[in-house]
Amino acid sequence: MALTSRPSCEAADAADPLAHALERFLVDGARIYMDGNSLGPPPAAALDAVTKVVRDQWRGGLISSWNRAGWLDQPFLLGDQVGELIGAAPGQVAICDSTSVNLFKLLAATLAHGRAEGRRAIVTTDDNFPTDLYVAGAAAELAGGTVLLSGAAGVDSGTAALTLSHVDYRTGRMLDMAAITAASHGAGAMVVWDLSHSAGAVPLALDEWGVDLAVGCTYKFLNCGPGAPAFLYVARRWQPVLANFVRGWFGHADPFAFSPAFTPAPGIARFMSGTPGIIGLAPVAAAMEAWSGVSMADVRAKSVAIAELLIERIDALGLEVASPRAAAERGPQVSVRSAEGYGLSRALGEAGVVVDFRPPDIVRFGITPLYLRFVDAWDAMDGLASVIAAGAHRDARWAERARVP
Amino acid sequence: MALTSRPSCEAADAADPLAHALERFLVDGARIYMDGNSLGPPPAAALDAVTKVVRDQWRGGLISSWNRAGWLDQPFLLGDQVGELIGAAPGQVAICDSTSVNLFKLLAATLAHGRAEGRRAIVTTDDNFPTDLYVAGAAAELAGGTVLLSGAAGVDSGTAALTLSHVDYRTGRMLDMAAITAASHGAGAMVVWDLSHSAGAVPLALDEWGVDLAVGCTYKFLNCGPGAPAFLYVARRWQPVLANFVRGWFGHADPFAFSPAFTPAPGIARFMSGTPGIIGLAPVAAAMEAWSGVSMADVRAKSVAIAELLIERIDALGLEVASPRAAAERGPQVSVRSAEGYGLSRALGEAGVVVDFRPPDIVRFGITPLYLRFVDAWDAMDGLASVIAAGAHRDARWAERARVP
Repeated sequence: MALTSRPSCEAADAADPLAHALERFLVDGARIYMDGNSLGPPPAAALDAVTKVVRDQWRGGLISSWNRAGWLDQPFLLGDQVGELIGAAPGQVAICDSTSVNLFKLLAATLAHGRAEGRRAIVTTDDNFPTDLYVAGAAAELAGGTVLLSGAAGVDSGTAALTLSHVDYRTGRMLDMAAITAASHGAGAMVVWDLSHSAGAVPLALDEWGVDLAVGCTYKFLNCGPGAPAFLYVARRWQPVLANFVRGWFGHADPFAFSPAFTPAPGIARFMSGTPGIIGLAPVAAAMEAWSGVSMADVRAKSVAIAELLIERIDALGLEVASPRAAAERGPQVSVRSAEGYGLSRALGEAGVVVDFRPPDIVRFGITPLYLRFVDAWDAMDGLASVIAAGAHRDARWAERARVP
Repeated sequence: MALTSRPSCEAADAADPLAHALERFLVDGARIYMDGNSLGPPPAAALDAVTKVVRDQWRGGLISSWNRAGWLDQPFLLGDQVGELIGAAPGQVAICDSTSVNLFKLLAATLAHGRAEGRRAIVTTDDNFPTDLYVAGAAAELAGGTVLLSGAAGVDSGTAALTLSHVDYRTGRMLDMAAITAASHGAGAMVVWDLSHSAGAVPLALDEWGVDLAVGCTYKFLNCGPGAPAFLYVARRWQPVLANFVRGWFGHADPFAFSPAFTPAPGIARFMSGTPGIIGLAPVAAAMEAWSGVSMADVRAKSVAIAELLIERIDALGLEVASPRAAAERGPQVSVRSAEGYGLSRALGEAGVVVDFRPPDIVRFGITPLYLRFVDAWDAMDGLASVIAAGAHRDARWAERARVP
């Protein structure tokens, strides 16, 4: 079905197997939200979930809720649910800390593991997500390692780990996780993947693809709330081998023994640190309800169809598409590259289309099939056409860049 | 006023300058809660605060709430409010991550700083809070340092940092923070204090006492919620000197420039890591409202009076008081040491007095003057007397220890 008119988009929405998911989110009709790759909207059940934790469990059960309300197990139960969405069998994913802290844990673990074999380098690329570069640099500095920006081709016998973002946050370029992982293994090195811009958006098969380690954000496509706790994945084969250096009592084999000696928990729990933030985990549970029964193949099919609609209309406006044109190389976003990108993003916002801008020149249209309809994408492109036609993006107000997340 | 009868406790409550604070918390009258040193109850405003964040800010403002709802500044605004309670001038406290992660950051920073001077050791004691020992061990292992269990007396020219808990979680023994800090400085070493069992319970004067670095928990005496984000304190003089190795974009001088190079933020912000958990910060804000206008001197005076009541009655029952008898050496708890401690804690719970047990033989009575009345303390001791008289603590059900946080 060619999405070449608004009626064709309406027809696509009517036939959409994901159409029912819209009601699982608190989305108002006043705006078209294409910034779910930065912050997803609340699941409809989020407020009830948080209320239950505060009123019934914290107030009602107080300290006993750690056991009776199951707080202790939340990071792992929710981890298994996220695991289902990324192709990880149970017992390999935990929800905890931030993506940055989790990446530090995993990179430090690979550096320590690599020492015996003289593997001292973390290999990455200079266009990786900036925070990932900060984390790699700090982990290497503290652990006495190095960071090389040579990319996957630079992996060799001195590499402790290759770390890459699966989907580039600027252009949406998506890497071949299975092939890169296999090639890195050929050189004896682990790979640590950052799935922040692909989890909940494209089909992932971490176990099948032989992935070693991964981290990711839950507040984008997974809709778990602003700054929600992140996830980490450690393949079962690595769990008994790697050490977590950001330790805490929740990673101890018997936290309530209060032993002065650290005995790591078996399994994924050893990668926990301090006490998990239970209030922040409540919306994660609500989001997992919203994801229940959703086929990631359906998500991807709709995402690709919307991306193609966007690309066609952006082409027609004479703007530069910064994202790969081949669907297999493109994640869940379409980016426009323009020297006037900041003004475009702000003028679109005023026109009711929420997108974001990434310096120096990228406007991102995030594609979130659970609550973004085909007609929304169509209307967003109408909005873009109107902005361009009216020159609204050249308004003097946008000449100076404000701080925009 | 001698608290030697229930009527004398009623009179003390009637004259209590903190009596009005009780209504600021959601505490039911069915139980006497003396486990606020493990998990404080919810502030009355907690549910509204969380609801506002989820419904108005997350749903209503979506991504724009990072700026418009002030999410970006929350860790620092709330940090300054916690700072007021611990004697820290603004700009030196941030609310972020867990106590464990924050302790790792600060210990790693001291190890890296000490390298140039050959200061490679973290000095602590074997009875420090177990997690703190795990963190110290891991930081030293990763950074190529060592851990010495020689205590404050072992601080010398090879010491990067001394790290201690201000109040011992088992016995409630409280150290002289000012004197120990000064002595350590005399040997050229920094001190990292863990204030988890004293913040919000005893008057602290971090700036005045010349404290270098500190971390602490907000879910105990500060009542910020289960697993709420912790605080860290870095004295202003150390902020430009020390590096944070658990980096993330929130510690960058200009996070939204997305620069591949890490330029640390000036001030306390450089000790942030990833995106702060906004949902979990909402109850912190509610707790700070509940603390508003509270005099820590009043808190301490009431805490000491209740402790003396407890000690007198525990003595009268022939049980062993494990806490120091001198108020100046005792934090906000009274502990009983008993081989039957586990049974005592469980039998007290069934009698409506919530306390906790710490292996191998400690029963803790936490003293939280904002919502614990003098009559509650009196009644709790009546409960203890009844348990002992009836032998309820020797019930066969308590013979085997269950997992208890």
